[in-house]
Amino acid sequence: MSLLPTLADVQAAARRLQGITLRTPLLENQRVNAMLGGQLFLKAECLQRTGSFKLRGAYNFLASMGEAERKKGAVGWSSGNHAQGLAEAARLLGMKATIVMPADAPALKVANTRASGAEIVLYDRVKDSREEIGQGIAAKTGAAIVPPYDHAWILTGQGTVGIEIVEQARDAGVTLDAVAAPCSGGGLSTGIALAVKGLSPSTSVHAGEPAGFDDLTRSLVAGERVKNDKLSGSICDALLAPTPGEVTFELAKRLLGPGLVVTDEEVLDAMEVAFREYKIVVEPGGAVALAAALTGKLPVKGRAVAVVCSGGNVDHATFARALARRAA
Amino acid sequence: MSLLPTLADVQAAARRLQGITLRTPLLENQRVNAMLGGQLFLKAECLQRTGSFKLRGAYNFLASMGEAERKKGAVGWSSGNHAQGLAEAARLLGMKATIVMPADAPALKVANTRASGAEIVLYDRVKDSREEIGQGIAAKTGAAIVPPYDHAWILTGQGTVGIEIVEQARDAGVTLDAVAAPCSGGGLSTGIALAVKGLSPSTSVHAGEPAGFDDLTRSLVAGERVKNDKLSGSICDALLAPTPGEVTFELAKRLLGPGLVVTDEEVLDAMEVAFREYKIVVEPGGAVALAAALTGKLPVKGRAVAVVCSGGNVDHATFARALARRAA
Repeated sequence: MSLLPTLADVQAAARRLQGITLRTPLLENQRVNAMLGGQLFLKAECLQRTGSFKLRGAYNFLASMGEAERKKGAVGWSSGNHAQGLAEAARLLGMKATIVMPADAPALKVANTRASGAEIVLYDRVKDSREEIGQGIAAKTGAAIVPPYDHAWILTGQGTVGIEIVEQARDAGVTLDAVAAPCSGGGLSTGIALAVKGLSPSTSVHAGEPAGFDDLTRSLVAGERVKNDKLSGSICDALLAPTPGEVTFELAKRLLGPGLVVTDEEVLDAMEVAFREYKIVVEPGGAVALAAALTGKLPVKGRAVAVVCSGGNVDHATFARALARRAA
Repeated sequence: MSLLPTLADVQAAARRLQGITLRTPLLENQRVNAMLGGQLFLKAECLQRTGSFKLRGAYNFLASMGEAERKKGAVGWSSGNHAQGLAEAARLLGMKATIVMPADAPALKVANTRASGAEIVLYDRVKDSREEIGQGIAAKTGAAIVPPYDHAWILTGQGTVGIEIVEQARDAGVTLDAVAAPCSGGGLSTGIALAVKGLSPSTSVHAGEPAGFDDLTRSLVAGERVKNDKLSGSICDALLAPTPGEVTFELAKRLLGPGLVVTDEEVLDAMEVAFREYKIVVEPGGAVALAAALTGKLPVKGRAVAVVCSGGNVDHATFARALARRAA
């Protein structure tokens, strides 16, 4: 294990992202606060360019590379938000990006990634290994492999969300009792923890996960990285990493409080509340921390709590399911 | 006609609203920009507290009153966003508010207004006059009548949206060619025009209206205030004022460019784009300026244009209609 990143690395990332990423708003709603008996803040990272926080880490990674390496381009594999974030980060830096995506990925996600100018290489989920394809491209072209979470440059980029949360809460006159963020491989939650624990040590930081995909929650209990039994089967398509990353787990052990686990039904309910009360579009995986707050798994009563709504890339049919959870 | 308000009045309103209203983000989307061949910015005022810009004007009105008058409370009539904005402004200032609402108003809107602590007086749309009821309450209690748009304190409060747009565009390195906002009685659009024309004289400002309810657009052509033929029948329930206000029309004549008129179908399409690309929930009336930009009625090609998405208080069934305009 190389040296773990620190708050200073997140602050350096924030300087790189200045003028690149949107300082997304920290939203509050009087009715929800009254219902919960406390102060709940939503960090609306679904409004970030490319529809999720992923641009932060991808841009920070590419901007941290040397000039010569940048000329050789970047390669990554993802069927979702990391693909779009990486493609857009490369476009902003004038770099060539190649994204390896499954041939059966939703047409809209492929089109959105291509719209940022990335080259798309499609693979067969059954027959091919996306890692092998990506590594082959990197070996041939010298392009840098940009991982989705398990790298200091990625997670410190995501951690800039945490700096903003602490600053925006202070602007509102509040010291937060807790912050929670959705978790797949742990880049967002541990990056945020670096920032929040550094700037506001009394604030606890928690990762939210879908039931059945709570590898980090169980790993924190076990003291070692454990795996999920399944690779698919949650509505939270962005949160299906099989196990915590190596670097992210080292940070999680040191910085995170207990994990929060929510069901698909609770996630759909949270998406409906985000629509009705906060007027934002949140994808299932982006709503797990909000779901934990609304269900009381992350207590808000008598406290000030911020949850990250991490992405909004949801298809129409799934969003209609969330709307149907409550008639107008 | 008393003296018309100026940019300085909008700037004074901005100081009153500091720390009260949210500085809503100015959103941009790479794909939509590429499609339109220009730079389109969305001022996401649907994320404002109470779900619309209306809190700005209502709070500025109450905060501009004298201490003694404030103690007597405020009264207003509205079935929609002004009711919620006024009730919340009164709560924030520790004032009593009475809102006159139709007995057949959606239960959710009544409940939301009551949640801010306002007293609700229901009236019969057919038999009663809400103005008479409201004026009766004012006469009896000494409460101040807070009008929805036709008052300097209201429209200069709404105009703070325009100050933020100019500042946020400048932060992005852009001088805007045009700004457009939804228009019912004209408080938002003329308030914004005071700010934008004062700070950035080369920027044109336009009001958007639903087809059949384009009283301001036609009034600007006629040089005098004309009325709509109908009082209901558009999906844009927030934009049904019968004619421009007196003060707002005087400002509109001096400051606004030609009006923009869009159909209900175009509005639903714009709501779908706001969902898909910008991840925000916009109500029909809040989407008319965006609809004008997306349809080319307000040209974006080769230009930098900002549109205000002014509210997000839409019921589930109407939003589902917008989603159905495009399958995922």
